[in-house]
Amino acid sequence: MKALACIVLAATLVAMATPASAQFAKPEDAIKYRQSALSVMGTHFGRVGAMVNGKVPFDAKAAADNAEIVAAMAKLPWAAFGPNTDKGSIPTRAKPEIWAEQAKFKEYSDKLGAESIKLAAAAKTGNIDTLKTAFGATAGSCKACHDAYRKE
Amino acid sequence: MKALACIVLAATLVAMATPASAQFAKPEDAIKYRQSALSVMGTHFGRVGAMVNGKVPFDAKAAADNAEIVAAMAKLPWAAFGPNTDKGSIPTRAKPEIWAEQAKFKEYSDKLGAESIKLAAAAKTGNIDTLKTAFGATAGSCKACHDAYRKE
Repeated sequence: MKALACIVLAATLVAMATPASAQFAKPEDAIKYRQSALSVMGTHFGRVGAMVNGKVPFDAKAAADNAEIVAAMAKLPWAAFGPNTDKGSIPTRAKPEIWAEQAKFKEYSDKLGAESIKLAAAAKTGNIDTLKTAFGATAGSCKACHDAYRKE
Repeated sequence: MKALACIVLAATLVAMATPASAQFAKPEDAIKYRQSALSVMGTHFGRVGAMVNGKVPFDAKAAADNAEIVAAMAKLPWAAFGPNTDKGSIPTRAKPEIWAEQAKFKEYSDKLGAESIKLAAAAKTGNIDTLKTAFGATAGSCKACHDAYRKE
């Protein structure tokens, strides 16, 4: 009985210490999650881009709403690049370098986080030129990370 | 030239009047978007559920963070159930009834929106029993909509 109690306690402590990155039961759950979060972010970022690039008329409210969602979504994907999530039963374009260069990868994701907050702030000003600058910086941070860590 | 100017103006007006629901170039873009948003929401809702159901020790901060994301995500999928997005080049479990019963479908999505806001508020109290009640109500609103509008 003492051994059992000890096992139960140990299991509880392990569960309590489990970081967010390990909250996926299977690698493919993490892959699906990060792809989903990045995809939703990309959709809203694309809508800001369409206005910035003049493909769609500038609508300050829509730009602000979309940029706000980009900033919220930009926080999510990274916890799903935890240990042993480099491959699973669904395809992933994540390069193995992500797991070999965790500090550099984190720099990129932190950079996107910071740029997306600036993007949301810029969109709130209602000034298209301010938004263009912030959009360019955010897009640059997406591209830098994709160039380094995403397969073609 | 006058005709051309008129066409350009008309196209601009149409673009300006385009609702969010029509912001997807192809039906499969809308399908992928709503599936992604629902999947991210489900992941975070599942994490609240694991605590509520005692599978994972209750962590008030984690519960509040996850419930906050659920409430934010709960706003997103519905604009992607616009006209002509009932099928596309990727599989969807959305039933055709969604497009035949738009008012009822909106009631369900509004209900989830309201329940998820209550869930986030309940999680912030740090009281597991308050959270359990709100979780049950939110889960009930997911299930009601899935039963009516999602294929097995």
